[in-house]
Amino acid sequence: MIDFSPTPEQEALRAKVDAFIRTRVVPLETDPRQGPHGPSEELRLELNALARADGLLAPHVGKAWGGLGLDHAGCALVFEAAGYSPLGPIALNCSAPDEGNMHMLELIATEAQKERYLRALAAGETRSCFAMTEPAPGAGADPDLLLTEARRDGDHYVVNGRKWLITGAQGAAFAIIMARAEEGATMLLCDMSAPGIVIERILDTLDQGFAGGHAVLRFDAVRVPIENVLGAAGEGFKYAQVRLAPARLTHCMRWLGAATRAHDVARDYAAKRRAFGKTLGEHEGVGFMLADNEIDLHQSRLVIWHCAWLLDQGRSAGSASSLAKVTCSEALFRVADRCVQILGGMGVTHDSVVERIFRELRAFRIYDGPSEVHRWALARRALRAAPKGH
Amino acid sequence: MIDFSPTPEQEALRAKVDAFIRTRVVPLETDPRQGPHGPSEELRLELNALARADGLLAPHVGKAWGGLGLDHAGCALVFEAAGYSPLGPIALNCSAPDEGNMHMLELIATEAQKERYLRALAAGETRSCFAMTEPAPGAGADPDLLLTEARRDGDHYVVNGRKWLITGAQGAAFAIIMARAEEGATMLLCDMSAPGIVIERILDTLDQGFAGGHAVLRFDAVRVPIENVLGAAGEGFKYAQVRLAPARLTHCMRWLGAATRAHDVARDYAAKRRAFGKTLGEHEGVGFMLADNEIDLHQSRLVIWHCAWLLDQGRSAGSASSLAKVTCSEALFRVADRCVQILGGMGVTHDSVVERIFRELRAFRIYDGPSEVHRWALARRALRAAPKGH
Amino acid sequence: MIDFSPTPEQEALRAKVDAFIRTRVVPLETDPRQGPHGPSEELRLELNALARADGLLAPHVGKAWGGLGLDHAGCALVFEAAGYSPLGPIALNCSAPDEGNMHMLELIATEAQKERYLRALAAGETRSCFAMTEPAPGAGADPDLLLTEARRDGDHYVVNGRKWLITGAQGAAFAIIMARAEEGATMLLCDMSAPGIVIERILDTLDQGFAGGHAVLRFDAVRVPIENVLGAAGEGFKYAQVRLAPARLTHCMRWLGAATRAHDVARDYAAKRRAFGKTLGEHEGVGFMLADNEIDLHQSRLVIWHCAWLLDQGRSAGSASSLAKVTCSEALFRVADRCVQILGGMGVTHDSVVERIFRELRAFRIYDGPSEVHRWALARRALRAAPKGH
Amino acid sequence: MIDFSPTPEQEALRAKVDAFIRTRVVPLETDPRQGPHGPSEELRLELNALARADGLLAPHVGKAWGGLGLDHAGCALVFEAAGYSPLGPIALNCSAPDEGNMHMLELIATEAQKERYLRALAAGETRSCFAMTEPAPGAGADPDLLLTEARRDGDHYVVNGRKWLITGAQGAAFAIIMARAEEGATMLLCDMSAPGIVIERILDTLDQGFAGGHAVLRFDAVRVPIENVLGAAGEGFKYAQVRLAPARLTHCMRWLGAATRAHDVARDYAAKRRAFGKTLGEHEGVGFMLADNEIDLHQSRLVIWHCAWLLDQGRSAGSASSLAKVTCSEALFRVADRCVQILGGMGVTHDSVVERIFRELRAFRIYDGPSEVHRWALARRALRAAPKGH
Repeated sequence: MIDFSPTPEQEALRAKVDAFIRTRVVPLETDPRQGPHGPSEELRLELNALARADGLLAPHVGKAWGGLGLDHAGCALVFEAAGYSPLGPIALNCSAPDEGNMHMLELIATEAQKERYLRALAAGETRSCFAMTEPAPGAGADPDLLLTEARRDGDHYVVNGRKWLITGAQGAAFAIIMARAEEGATMLLCDMSAPGIVIERILDTLDQGFAGGHAVLRFDAVRVPIENVLGAAGEGFKYAQVRLAPARLTHCMRWLGAATRAHDVARDYAAKRRAFGKTLGEHEGVGFMLADNEIDLHQSRLVIWHCAWLLDQGRSAGSASSLAKVTCSEALFRVADRCVQILGGMGVTHDSVVERIFRELRAFRIYDGPSEVHRWALARRALRAAPKGH
Repeated sequence: MIDFSPTPEQEALRAKVDAFIRTRVVPLETDPRQGPHGPSEELRLELNALARADGLLAPHVGKAWGGLGLDHAGCALVFEAAGYSPLGPIALNCSAPDEGNMHMLELIATEAQKERYLRALAAGETRSCFAMTEPAPGAGADPDLLLTEARRDGDHYVVNGRKWLITGAQGAAFAIIMARAEEGATMLLCDMSAPGIVIERILDTLDQGFAGGHAVLRFDAVRVPIENVLGAAGEGFKYAQVRLAPARLTHCMRWLGAATRAHDVARDYAAKRRAFGKTLGEHEGVGFMLADNEIDLHQSRLVIWHCAWLLDQGRSAGSASSLAKVTCSEALFRVADRCVQILGGMGVTHDSVVERIFRELRAFRIYDGPSEVHRWALARRALRAAPKGH
Repeated sequence: MIDFSPTPEQEALRAKVDAFIRTRVVPLETDPRQGPHGPSEELRLELNALARADGLLAPHVGKAWGGLGLDHAGCALVFEAAGYSPLGPIALNCSAPDEGNMHMLELIATEAQKERYLRALAAGETRSCFAMTEPAPGAGADPDLLLTEARRDGDHYVVNGRKWLITGAQGAAFAIIMARAEEGATMLLCDMSAPGIVIERILDTLDQGFAGGHAVLRFDAVRVPIENVLGAAGEGFKYAQVRLAPARLTHCMRWLGAATRAHDVARDYAAKRRAFGKTLGEHEGVGFMLADNEIDLHQSRLVIWHCAWLLDQGRSAGSASSLAKVTCSEALFRVADRCVQILGGMGVTHDSVVERIFRELRAFRIYDGPSEVHRWALARRALRAAPKGH
Repeated sequence: MIDFSPTPEQEALRAKVDAFIRTRVVPLETDPRQGPHGPSEELRLELNALARADGLLAPHVGKAWGGLGLDHAGCALVFEAAGYSPLGPIALNCSAPDEGNMHMLELIATEAQKERYLRALAAGETRSCFAMTEPAPGAGADPDLLLTEARRDGDHYVVNGRKWLITGAQGAAFAIIMARAEEGATMLLCDMSAPGIVIERILDTLDQGFAGGHAVLRFDAVRVPIENVLGAAGEGFKYAQVRLAPARLTHCMRWLGAATRAHDVARDYAAKRRAFGKTLGEHEGVGFMLADNEIDLHQSRLVIWHCAWLLDQGRSAGSASSLAKVTCSEALFRVADRCVQILGGMGVTHDSVVERIFRELRAFRIYDGPSEVHRWALARRALRAAPKGH
């Protein structure tokens, strides 16, 4: 039966996270232990400790591995609340790329792999990265262009290649590496301390919120034992979808919270700043922007909830998550862009969190598949639904 | 608990309506008994008879009055399915303005008024109109400008004034007239045969689907007995909201079906028409339009369902219906506009139902409150949520 | 030297046309001799007589053939002024498709062909049509799909095929037929009275302003003497470009005038109609629409002037006219769409010329190449400018 | 006569600047002497020396003061070419705020003031700032809210107040201060070394290209001799318009160059990067973005040229510069945004100049009057053109 009421348990948890973010996390937003490549490890650990103390760590992870065991609908509520602060998802240990990695490990790793990699990761003791994207002419939006090789040598794979824009690599305990093996695209778990893994540099980027930033990595004959294959060799792209479809959606959830924050800041400013004889908000030119924000936020939330519900039903949600990703990334960017505009000069300074959210949301339109790839997928699906026989 | 599954009963009814529309109604779309002011009365009665035979008449009306007694969520499913054909809502007797009038009568009319006006209306035996909008400088988007007067004279009101864009007046059995009485804005039930009611002319308009078209009415000292006051005198604007909030939403439901139809037509055309070496749909320039259609349709549906759910909960839905109206009218118009574009020359001819849907949807961005009025209402609500004390 | 001043002669002529349109043509806009397929032949002849009396007929045609001999820049000014009324271009005998046909005839017809076809056409004594577009799966946006055949038989071509959306065919004295001959695409001048030319029907379309409407034509073994080949056989597509590049631009000029008209109507309405305590125009939600109109009109005018200047320089203007077409058709449609919205209910009735302009402008986004074809051409040109050797 | 040909002299100078930028300035874009608050003073002086050596310094300044004496049309060509590199306008000493300050000084300063302030500024020996904007609740988009006071004390004004977002204050030799005197808003020339001028801090902002960044200033009883009044006391707002109308336009010119650069980078990338079996540019989803870029760039250029021509004619260009500002800032931002999208991950890294241009252009939609203020001005002008007497 069509119902838009969260359960009482969901509501209670959301309220708890909401209060946690506003009272414990927001005050740390101006903490100086943040730079162009995100919060320092020290700050991250402090944030995790706060969440741990309140029983809010790793909400998406199964209880067996130290999390709260939420389903996707539950995550939708909690991640949005967490995303209200740029530091919120880091505090709750549900930010990218760790969150998606935990999800995939829980689904396809062996018990031994989980013990070794997932447990500490879920506890916030370690970080991880997902090494898939490559510099041109390698794998970007089109994964088939994968150039990194994993050559079998006895009971090891020997990995050679370069990766790029690898979020969180700096400071990560391990990487999940996508490489081309004889069997096909294959994912390998690999300690970042392994000989031959070189962090060439950390990129300076428009977004600056991810712990560790985005790195350029090189693999110089890195040896990975075959028991570190994640899932089955050759099934890498299939597993990547297991990771990416929900990961796209959790991105949407977090950014929905961020855009809501920007909207609240802009609305409060519009309600008090005066110009030309009335408050900004009383000018329709500004008021209509607030209205459009409400529309974009509401639609994004509904699309997220619907896709989360599909995933919770165990139904195929590839198209739904494509639709959610393109919808939310564009709608939430519009919200952030309007908020910058409403704030005027204030909106382009670091004095306002809105400027930060704006930059993060611009990047979101590219990360996890640019809008164009998702529109293309949606178009293909639409056309397949046309009657045959023409 | 968040749930996007219609009940089995809702699903069954939707499927039944869906089949009815496709097999019985769509073939009548090219019936020549349609003109610039909608289907002829003869055609309308035939369509009603078909729906009656299948037990599908007046789905939104209580069973006591001959309908199916659906709640708003049920209507969301059924009205969308009905809207798949421009003739569908007329067939099911759930098109504007009758549908909204039935809803209001059921809520606020006396039993005697219901017997006299609602029963025949719900049965499809009569039609009705809602006489509120006035030509400039009278009441349009701003109801406070109401100029039509209802002067008390013994046990009658004497109504003088002019109305404009009154949908369905031609051929209606009765009107609900909004007039300014001593007590304030007041709604009166009035037979269209009453002396002094003059249909000055029927307007030619962009949209041509409403039975009876849109008329200019004049009231020359029309006498309405006081027992024909609908609800309490002076409460006209309050009741109008009772009518308008759900009526806006049912408009959205029907037009969602229409836009879906346009999308299906355009998609099927794009899947087979070839140009420059491939099908139109394989050109990303067209494929992306189909993708954006899917996005707009999906979002509109979710927004409608959410607002319907709010109404079914008995919760205040003024803002939600404003949001739904502005969202859906603009999103669905974009869909229709893209479909015209995809069809090319075909899309601007009456040979395709898409051209008709395009025209109807353009008008929908104005009827029941233009986007600007709804954005203004949303902005005001947003600003009220800002912290006080600045 | 960069200069945006028309010459004094251009200014004087523009002012004269402007006055002519406002005093002589606008009053005829409500003349009942107009229907779904444009003005009647009687009304057209009356309009031409008025323009002839003022020395304004066929401004784009050489003086030798009875016109004013304007260059493209001169046409830009005069056609815009003419377009201020939907009947203006018809009055001045510079509306589509005749205007483009005259232009092409003047450029590539033999003297004999000109005497026979151009002289009477320029004088407004006859009308013509351009029979190129075919129903699916024939030539539409992609001319290579041309199916109509011209088979050589002695000193005649025998033409078989079907055409569609042929503007002005009904009532035309002659057609320019694009057909596939042995030599390739070939254009043939053919009297509409020729045996075997059948007007299957006149399409009902969104736009209703073209004299004669848009027809479906059939050629049943129509015999065309070889001296009626226009230009050289096999060069049809090349000549079509000669016709289409400027014809696209003259469309833009006329529609710029139409959109300016719509804007003036909406602005005047916004300046006086009151709602919620002030005029509509004082509401920023409406005022900003007027501002955006001014922006769109100004940009369109500059783009047109620039392309006209290029053409007058004898420079290649294929890309520039593609750019002008896509820019103007979309910008001017936005203007019309906003004007409908500003007028509210009035904007969707035939009572306002805005509704008519809205419908015409929607069709303009498709006629003479839909936006997608022009964007594709612009993209291809942009990419060709990229450095080679990658 | 309508003409879009620059003069041969203009063409030659444009070509010279173009070559200078590409060969001398672009290679310095990765020079490490740049930070969050623009290039260092050392780098700036080096850039100026390069331009001086080529005779390209201060193109907009009269020859008497060391410049090239270009009119606005000439500036349009040269500033666009300079803007192709973010360092170009700094190199040519024609970047904001100095360029606008020079323009105003040349127009309204006394000879003594010019000798003292303009000569060194035009020579690139000093920098300047324009101290008008104030933090809330002071003067922002609405200058009437001006709070900074200039109290007359003998032959001095004593200035107290705070300013905010003052570009280039750090490192400037002097400021032009807008303050409220008894006579009304008044502009004062003031050495930055004057006692009581405090740079509270330099703001961190989305844009990072202006030399000196954007500062927060405080005036603590700063004494300014009355001979340092710029123009007449009380005429500050009038003079601000003298500065702002052309300054808005020169902003547009420079940013047009920047957006063209972004487009070239994106186009070249799209022409070689492959995905899904072809180059990015061959995907219509990307190709259409390139087409839209070409459209936006072309329109912006025409609008700029037109406004420059108006200014060169000595005609009132307040509305035209408002229109140019809102048009260009939005169109050029769209270009930059599309370029980021085309570049994908590369587009959000500092590795590409596109990311930098994107940030600068976002800020441009706010600086020198946000879009909303300009739309409001355009609307007001449009409404004034409506017929009176309603």
